[in-house]
Amino acid sequence: MAKPPVYPPALDRLIKSFAKLPGVGPKSAARLALFLNPAKPALALELAHSLEAAEAEVHYCPVCYNLTDQEICPICQDPDRTDEVICVIAGPADVAAIESAGAYEGRYHVLGGLLNPLEKIGPGQLKIRELLARLEDEAVEEVILATSPTTQGDATANYLISLLNDIDVRVTRIAFGLPVGSDLEYADPVSLKASLNGRRKA
Amino acid sequence: MAKPPVYPPALDRLIKSFAKLPGVGPKSAARLALFLNPAKPALALELAHSLEAAEAEVHYCPVCYNLTDQEICPICQDPDRTDEVICVIAGPADVAAIESAGAYEGRYHVLGGLLNPLEKIGPGQLKIRELLARLEDEAVEEVILATSPTTQGDATANYLISLLNDIDVRVTRIAFGLPVGSDLEYADPVSLKASLNGRRKA
Repeated sequence: MAKPPVYPPALDRLIKSFAKLPGVGPKSAARLALFLNPAKPALALELAHSLEAAEAEVHYCPVCYNLTDQEICPICQDPDRTDEVICVIAGPADVAAIESAGAYEGRYHVLGGLLNPLEKIGPGQLKIRELLARLEDEAVEEVILATSPTTQGDATANYLISLLNDIDVRVTRIAFGLPVGSDLEYADPVSLKASLNGRRKA
Repeated sequence: MAKPPVYPPALDRLIKSFAKLPGVGPKSAARLALFLNPAKPALALELAHSLEAAEAEVHYCPVCYNLTDQEICPICQDPDRTDEVICVIAGPADVAAIESAGAYEGRYHVLGGLLNPLEKIGPGQLKIRELLARLEDEAVEEVILATSPTTQGDATANYLISLLNDIDVRVTRIAFGLPVGSDLEYADPVSLKASLNGRRKA
C-alpha cells in the first residue's frame, strides 16, 4: 500500500532547502522547517526577505574582495587607514574577526578560500592574481599572511611566500603560540611547540 | 574611533534572522549567511521561496492538527484507515516517525507540544479540548498515548489518563524498554528497569 506523504509537499521542499546548508542534516532541517512553519509566519517571512535583500544588495568589493553593499567597501574607502599594509585572509569572517580585535589599521585582501587539492581549489580559484595586481599598482610595503594555522592555511601561506619572494615587499606571517589567558600546563603540544619556536627577545 | 561596520547591513540582518532559529547561535548564523551570500544566489533564493511557499500553503488540519496543504489532511481523509484508534502525539515530526515505522493504521491527534510548566505550556496551550471533542463525536475505541518517555511526555500522558478515565474509551501507553537491536549489557539502567516492569507473557 502506498503511504500518503507525511509532510505537505511545500513543507518537504522547505526541509530539502534547509538540508542544503552546511552542517544541517535531514533531522535538523526538519526541526528548523517545523519550528517556522506554520507556527512562526512572521519569522519565516523575515528570513525569506532577509535572504532576498542580502542577495540583491551584497556583492564582492572589486578591490579587496570583501563583502559590501557599496561600490567599494568601507575599509578600502577609509582615508584613515594606511595603504602600506595588506592583510591577506581566507574569507569575510576573518576580516570581521581581525576588525573586532581592533588592532589593525591597514587594508585587506580576501582570497575567497584556501588551497585544497581534495576539494579541487587551486591557485586559480583564489584571488591571488588580483593580489599580485594590487602589489604592482599600490604602494604596499608589507603583506601580512593571516591564514589560519591549519594544513590548508599553511599551504596557502607557503604558496604565497614563494610567489611574493620575487616582489620587493616585506612578507610576514601572523604569530602562533599559546592563546592569551590559557594555561601552559594544559596547552596542546603543537601550540606549545609553535610558541617555543616563535620565541622573541624579551 | 568608530569602526565601520564589518558586514553590509543586509548581510547583518540575514545573520540576525538565522540566529533566531533554534540551535543556531551567532557564529553558526554568520556561517550560514556567508555560505549563501553572495556565493550561492540560486540556493539563497530557493530557500527564500521555499519559506514563502510553505507559509502560504501549509496549515493545521482542523481535525487532527497535523500539518497539511489540503482542507483536511490525507491521513484524516484516508478511507482505508480505521477510525477506532487515535494515536496522541506531541508534534508533526512524531506523526512522520510513526508513519515511517509503517505499523499503524489508525488516526492521529497532534497536541502541538507537551505540558511544561517552566515554559508556561499548560493544558490550555495544547489541543486537549479538541481531543475530548473528537472522542465525543467519533466512534473511537482506543486512545494510544504516544508521547515520549520524558518528564514532559510522561506528565502529559498522565494528565490525559486522568481526563480520559471518565470517558468510555480504552487508554493505552506505548511500550518502553530496550531498543530493538541493542545490547542488554550496555543498556541504560532506566530503560532496563522499564523493560523489566513492562515484561509480558511469552
